[in-house]
Amino acid sequence: MARPDLVTTPGRFITLEGGEGAGKSTLISGLQAELERKGLTVCVTREPGGTVLAEKVRTLALNPPPNESWSPLSHALLMNTSRADHLEKRIRPALARGEWVLCDRFADSTRAYQSIDGVSLETLITIERAVVAETRPDITLILDADPAALADRRQQRGIQDVFEAKDLDFHKTVRAAFLAVAELEPDRCVVLDALQSPPQVLAIALDAITTRLDLT
Amino acid sequence: MARPDLVTTPGRFITLEGGEGAGKSTLISGLQAELERKGLTVCVTREPGGTVLAEKVRTLALNPPPNESWSPLSHALLMNTSRADHLEKRIRPALARGEWVLCDRFADSTRAYQSIDGVSLETLITIERAVVAETRPDITLILDADPAALADRRQQRGIQDVFEAKDLDFHKTVRAAFLAVAELEPDRCVVLDALQSPPQVLAIALDAITTRLDLT
Repeated sequence: MARPDLVTTPGRFITLEGGEGAGKSTLISGLQAELERKGLTVCVTREPGGTVLAEKVRTLALNPPPNESWSPLSHALLMNTSRADHLEKRIRPALARGEWVLCDRFADSTRAYQSIDGVSLETLITIERAVVAETRPDITLILDADPAALADRRQQRGIQDVFEAKDLDFHKTVRAAFLAVAELEPDRCVVLDALQSPPQVLAIALDAITTRLDLT
Repeated sequence: MARPDLVTTPGRFITLEGGEGAGKSTLISGLQAELERKGLTVCVTREPGGTVLAEKVRTLALNPPPNESWSPLSHALLMNTSRADHLEKRIRPALARGEWVLCDRFADSTRAYQSIDGVSLETLITIERAVVAETRPDITLILDADPAALADRRQQRGIQDVFEAKDLDFHKTVRAAFLAVAELEPDRCVVLDALQSPPQVLAIALDAITTRLDLT
């Protein structure tokens, strides 16, 4: 006999945000394993991208023709076009099937990075609302850390990646932009200390999800 | 000696809208000649397109990869991305130089066609305002005619083009959408009877421009 209580379990939409090197990928892997252990179907995806057309738009946004460049507003519109396709063809269908969607970056990244580029937050939120509509994340986990401390920790571990010391000012600006998002929407956002160990971060994230989304 | 009165003449932004086959190109040619005869510098442009990146976006919008299609909202966002680039790199600089810009289709075409495709007018206007910002057209000339009468006239003249009888219902819907724009913003929009002769349409358009834009 069918288990209607399982069949009708609504999907949940969880987004992960934060600067480069904060540990989003590690946390997503951990969350996926834990949620699947509870018998849930998990859809892991990412932005920008996630569908064929979203990837096309991403490529166009990142690779304009020679001697051409996108204005910050045009770039924000392309990110939102990519998001509209991703929502329509991947995220909303997964949620409709009752899956738990874990998305590596979502609308808050556009808010953070494009507002740094000079697009007004009001304009960004206006366009975001038109695109996201009713599909607001149920919870957004923001991985936060002082960029200098994060760089130190990564250097101690011998990790070489895009997180470079010369960009510290930029990383600080990104951090402030994500904290501003959390301050604006505290009901949706949970700020996690990214300097803790991965198991600690996972435990706190799971606790927040359990409390806020009635995960049992 | 410099003529500061000429140098400081502000540019004006005139858009032309209407369904296919209504005579926009003919009217633009006539207006360009008349305005240039008055010593004005005229910038003739069109949407979607008008800049290198706007054309790139247009191509992507019209030619998705095989088995893929844009949702109406994604299509509207692409049109607005194209418009943002066109405004930034061509229209606003021309207006800043004091030129008179004649644009074949602009934001009202997105309102008309994408609302027919199913995007809410509220969403379309929200995105449009974020993109167009302060660069609203000074005047919008809407070439209007009963599509059946227009098709008859064109057939009598032996003109074969995209305006086909089998699409009459669609043309009627487009006409209604443009008339709705005019009704919403009567201060900006002038509805012209496209069934008149080209010289008649030009004379009425010039009269409207003269009256509303202080053209002497």
